Amino acid sequence: MRMVIGIDIGGTKLTAALAGLDGRVAEKIRRRTEADWTAKDNLAALREMVQELLEAARRCGAEVESMGVGFGGPVEPIRGIVRRSHHVAGWEGVRLREEFEDAFGVRTHVDNDANVGALGELAYGAARDRRHVVYVNIGTGIGGALILNGRLHHGATGNSGEIGHIVIDRNGPPCTCGQRGCLEAFCSGPSIRRRAVKRLSRSCAGSTSLPTGAEAITVSSEDVFAAARKGDILAGKLVHETAELLGIGIANVLNLVNPELVVIGGGVAEAGDVLLGPLREAIRERAMPAAADVEVVAAELGYDAGVLGAIALAAQHLNEATTSR
Amino acid sequence: MRMVIGIDIGGTKLTAALAGLDGRVAEKIRRRTEADWTAKDNLAALREMVQELLEAARRCGAEVESMGVGFGGPVEPIRGIVRRSHHVAGWEGVRLREEFEDAFGVRTHVDNDANVGALGELAYGAARDRRHVVYVNIGTGIGGALILNGRLHHGATGNSGEIGHIVIDRNGPPCTCGQRGCLEAFCSGPSIRRRAVKRLSRSCAGSTSLPTGAEAITVSSEDVFAAARKGDILAGKLVHETAELLGIGIANVLNLVNPELVVIGGGVAEAGDVLLGPLREAIRERAMPAAADVEVVAAELGYDAGVLGAIALAAQHLNEATTSR
Repeated sequence: MRMVIGIDIGGTKLTAALAGLDGRVAEKIRRRTEADWTAKDNLAALREMVQELLEAARRCGAEVESMGVGFGGPVEPIRGIVRRSHHVAGWEGVRLREEFEDAFGVRTHVDNDANVGALGELAYGAARDRRHVVYVNIGTGIGGALILNGRLHHGATGNSGEIGHIVIDRNGPPCTCGQRGCLEAFCSGPSIRRRAVKRLSRSCAGSTSLPTGAEAITVSSEDVFAAARKGDILAGKLVHETAELLGIGIANVLNLVNPELVVIGGGVAEAGDVLLGPLREAIRERAMPAAADVEVVAAELGYDAGVLGAIALAAQHLNEATTSR
Repeated sequence: MRMVIGIDIGGTKLTAALAGLDGRVAEKIRRRTEADWTAKDNLAALREMVQELLEAARRCGAEVESMGVGFGGPVEPIRGIVRRSHHVAGWEGVRLREEFEDAFGVRTHVDNDANVGALGELAYGAARDRRHVVYVNIGTGIGGALILNGRLHHGATGNSGEIGHIVIDRNGPPCTCGQRGCLEAFCSGPSIRRRAVKRLSRSCAGSTSLPTGAEAITVSSEDVFAAARKGDILAGKLVHETAELLGIGIANVLNLVNPELVVIGGGVAEAGDVLLGPLREAIRERAMPAAADVEVVAAELGYDAGVLGAIALAAQHLNEATTSR
């Protein structure tokens, strides 16, 4: 039996799984990382995890022919080199592909977490059998990926899909990237929270279920969505504003690449229809008529999206190698 | 000898040319349209022009095996149906492909002028042998096209590349498309002119070579670029502002599709380095580091871009048909 291993390297946890080419997971290992771990510590832990999965494969007579790695930050996808990490020290320049190929003698493919997330949805989730898909991951930041003609689009230097850093308001709030008014500066989890705290801090905020005034500081973006779902008017306004802003950014993408499907993933997307409903409306109002005819759905793979995407990456390369033999 | 015919349908003129598969033009006909012409009148004139070119081909023993049509407005590219025209009545729903195939029995391919312009640059101009190219046409409006993996990207419904309608300032000036703060609302020829008139209308405008006060209304975007080239400080500021705004919009595109080359065409691009210089700088400052590593050049095909692009469209399909036989 031919199998693959998928590896998801996040800022606070590592996941590795052994799976069939159809994405069915046979065994999965998850490990939380320590706050003081460097890239070296992460790699050592990953080596142990992969070793364990390889032994599991051997026990059931399977051969692991390909590994896929999703990394939580920009990478150079062909050579599999990390450009940088936003969370953990020492990752810059690490040759992930070589590290794994040298250690285990198994062909390894590396990509960033957004691209890998999109591949997972394409292979096993909401984007199955679609040709032109925009994937938007809304969490601590906003990442994205483009599936064009049924394949991940990497661009000239492997840096495409940075939907979070599309500027929708040149005079808008400062973004972590150094620009102003990027989509991420308005609509990432922390940015939604920031807008909520600002609004709620005014004593006359008029929310019936969220903390206001001095206590507003304790609110989270999840609280806002939960309150909106219960009918809180101020929370509803905040969610609507978020949908409007996301709508402008996503409409920009639609006008440019004209996909048939938009898949929304990440923590913020778990808000579900309270966000997706007004978002669909905003997109329809904002995109040009011929590009607005697009389906907008939630990602399907949820918590395991990262590792399932890495499995999809490994399986895709294996399938292609087989076909072109 | 195998030849093709390229046809460019603009708002005020029609061009048709007979050419070899290498894009070398053997004969070209250009005709100005009358202000009161409908789509029917345009088609009748085009039929005469094509007839003339077919006879020219016959005289030199050549066979015309493919025709390409570039239309100045949105089309449905596969079936070759016009979606609408911004300039001429009666175009909506016209089956251009069928019209030409029925009239002449020659395979015909139709696309919008921006896509055709990009194909021309790819085949015969500034984008030769490039894989990932963004083409931006800045004139009366701002059009655009994406070449990805060496091929024109059409998207799900043939509506991709609408770079002019990327919103860069959600509170910006109203755009013809109904949104606010689109790139076109800032940087098309008429929008540049509008910004110039507004600035120059103030009596204390401080321009030494452009008309100010009540006479500011006579200024054109070409005047602004010419004055900037001569060192006029206010004109220089206007051009710089234009480059900044274009830079934000183009950086959005780079962050999303990560091309290796940006080709700037259209009337405004003829301003040359007085605009391209500051534009290159603005792009480098605005795009994410890994995507900012991009060449920005002027289109090469100039006045004949439309018809050469249509020739490229015809030749491309002919080459593909031959290869896949």
